[in-house]
Amino acid sequence: MTHPPLMPNAYTPGAANLPPEDEARIARRARLLGPAYRLFYGEPLHLVRGEGVWLYDREGRAYLDTYNNVASVGHCHPRVVAAMAQQAGVLATHTRYLHDGILDYAERLLALFPNQLSHVMFTCTGSEANDLGYRIARAATGGTGVIVTDNAYHGVTLATAEMSMSVGPAVAPGPAVFAIPAPSHENYPDGIAQGFAANVEAACLQMQAEGIKPAMLIVDTVFSSDGVRPDPIGFLAPAMAAIRAAGGLLLADEVQPGFGRTGSHMWGFQRHGLVPDMVSLGKPMGNGYPMAGLVVRPDVLANFSDKSRYFNTFGGNAVAAAVGMAVLDVIRDEGLMENAASVGAAFADGMRDIATRHDTLGETRAAGLFMGTDILKDGEPDGHRATRLVNDLRRMGILISNTGPLGHILKIRPPLTFSPVHVEQFLSRLETILRAT
Amino acid sequence: MTHPPLMPNAYTPGAANLPPEDEARIARRARLLGPAYRLFYGEPLHLVRGEGVWLYDREGRAYLDTYNNVASVGHCHPRVVAAMAQQAGVLATHTRYLHDGILDYAERLLALFPNQLSHVMFTCTGSEANDLGYRIARAATGGTGVIVTDNAYHGVTLATAEMSMSVGPAVAPGPAVFAIPAPSHENYPDGIAQGFAANVEAACLQMQAEGIKPAMLIVDTVFSSDGVRPDPIGFLAPAMAAIRAAGGLLLADEVQPGFGRTGSHMWGFQRHGLVPDMVSLGKPMGNGYPMAGLVVRPDVLANFSDKSRYFNTFGGNAVAAAVGMAVLDVIRDEGLMENAASVGAAFADGMRDIATRHDTLGETRAAGLFMGTDILKDGEPDGHRATRLVNDLRRMGILISNTGPLGHILKIRPPLTFSPVHVEQFLSRLETILRAT
Repeated sequence: MTHPPLMPNAYTPGAANLPPEDEARIARRARLLGPAYRLFYGEPLHLVRGEGVWLYDREGRAYLDTYNNVASVGHCHPRVVAAMAQQAGVLATHTRYLHDGILDYAERLLALFPNQLSHVMFTCTGSEANDLGYRIARAATGGTGVIVTDNAYHGVTLATAEMSMSVGPAVAPGPAVFAIPAPSHENYPDGIAQGFAANVEAACLQMQAEGIKPAMLIVDTVFSSDGVRPDPIGFLAPAMAAIRAAGGLLLADEVQPGFGRTGSHMWGFQRHGLVPDMVSLGKPMGNGYPMAGLVVRPDVLANFSDKSRYFNTFGGNAVAAAVGMAVLDVIRDEGLMENAASVGAAFADGMRDIATRHDTLGETRAAGLFMGTDILKDGEPDGHRATRLVNDLRRMGILISNTGPLGHILKIRPPLTFSPVHVEQFLSRLETILRAT
Repeated sequence: MTHPPLMPNAYTPGAANLPPEDEARIARRARLLGPAYRLFYGEPLHLVRGEGVWLYDREGRAYLDTYNNVASVGHCHPRVVAAMAQQAGVLATHTRYLHDGILDYAERLLALFPNQLSHVMFTCTGSEANDLGYRIARAATGGTGVIVTDNAYHGVTLATAEMSMSVGPAVAPGPAVFAIPAPSHENYPDGIAQGFAANVEAACLQMQAEGIKPAMLIVDTVFSSDGVRPDPIGFLAPAMAAIRAAGGLLLADEVQPGFGRTGSHMWGFQRHGLVPDMVSLGKPMGNGYPMAGLVVRPDVLANFSDKSRYFNTFGGNAVAAAVGMAVLDVIRDEGLMENAASVGAAFADGMRDIATRHDTLGETRAAGLFMGTDILKDGEPDGHRATRLVNDLRRMGILISNTGPLGHILKIRPPLTFSPVHVEQFLSRLETILRAT
């Protein structure tokens, strides 16, 4: 039996000395939900309330949320909740009836994309969006081969789990999935752009040698689970050229970086000066309401729609449209993309400043409010130390997690409403911990 | 290019003489959502409001909804909307934190199942639930082979679309999917139970001959898209024995029949006096809020959870739990299962009564408020006549649709709050139409 690799920051049952009521709650959870579910933290967190950048536990203790990028405009944002409640009280049917809400939202959303990406299809989850993208890529190219990075995460359906190397060798890669090293300086010391593209090319040749035709390269455009790899700006363009030269497509997975988080642009792919063939959207799209989607070029969609109709019962329902619109309104009206740029830059500067005093902190990579910081011991990646730090921060009232193949990278993704005061709270508590260790 | 089969009751662009503003709306829709989406009805319906069993169009015209089994406790049910709004204003995080809401809901839900089915995993859509069931079946059996009925629908992910024969030959069956004739008297004149089981056995032998190990038989337990095939009660049991004898599992797809619709039981499989290995849930689970799930036996889940963890960002979030609980409360407090039984029986009797006077109506098959009625011409199935009837009813303010491989079967699935008065409205309008044709 191949055991799944340890999830970074996963709770190990029995490893902590928890209050009896939490032990009972965890036992009840295992009994009801079964053994495949995981909890975060050495001591799991029991949350009861959220507001803005704050989450509160049962005892009323506040936690500064610098991790959950679903509630991207802030937990329980009143405008989003009101839009949901209002539309849910009026109509919640699907896309086989005419409804202006979904069209208004689609138009508003597509206006945020380059002109060529002019269709949007609605799903409920990022997994479904990537799965649909793969179906469309297969129809468009006649191929099945997929290229992913070696700690990628793209979803939980059979097809997308087989593309999700981070879930472990018993799940991925699937038979038509080929993994290449993530775009890091360590993996490509002679230059990420050319090195990464060369590996895409090599993977295409390898799959063709195995009789598999390339369908697509799928990448999270900030390479979140690979440890946050946003730079150098533009490095993805040669990789896109390589997959296209082999007859495949580029699916930009914006489930994590999308909706303004990178600060400079609405979508991570825009930082690379390219126009992908398809773009998947998810997590922050409805600020917690289950909605996601796939934006696609008409010529890419044509072969799929010649063969198949598309319907998703809940995808694009009237409530989803109202919620999605409210999220876009809030991002615009509260200037959240601009805030992500300025606060994110200050946050990253602060991390780099602390790194000058504490060699536990290595490189910090950031695009807006998406940040990854390497945790080191004697100059080497140290996943255990990162996990300890994540749990120390949790005890100090700050939520983050760690990621990457070695689990040594802090993954920091606060709500886009994060302010300089919150940055200061984070940095001072982090330095307090580092001073004490 | 293989074109997708005509969807029953799909709008054909340009075929109707619509008001200019609707033509513009449809053109806008095609421009934004692309060519894979379909609309219902010869003249698409533009809905703006729903309440109970009624839907209202732009002009304020009321339509008696006897089709949408998502809003199963009634459109915009105030208790469900209130539960959603309340929880969305408090907390909407995910299953990697402890939260009592999801545990309370899981316990309440599982109490509605036989003891052996003691774990539930949460997804956002029925597609995701069936896809997860297939992943679990593969892990449990070591096989990949799937048996489905020949007009089945099980979802829109790559894996589940390949099991969805009703979507057409360009999509299904996938390479490991084997279709058998649906359980109808026409297909099995010598007895459905033994005939259907014999075909499951034969499909297992065929896949084994092709080197494919059986993983599962998946069936909608009222065989909705096969034309509604609920009887004879108990016919599924020998088929389950056959798939198990071949080392495979039974996944009961309750996305359409579940949550009390069949009247006599909460779940369609219970009518067959068996306990499946897995049960998928969806559409009515959140009365429109995107939520779904998979109920599974612990021994069936074990191999999957040894290999893989499971997480679905939105699946089982705190709002979903609150909404799901409100739906169960309403079903119980308003006696909706019992209502489905009594009103459903009267509805079916009324259809059979009309059939004695109008030979357009053939057999009516029903389980509670899930009903299928054959539409005939000169005693033969007539899909065109069924489509005409569906559109005539729409013009008379009643919404249903048609289904089945020939599109000749009326599919009738009103909200479970349907009353004898609504039945009377349906029947009298139907008879008015039949008298005029």
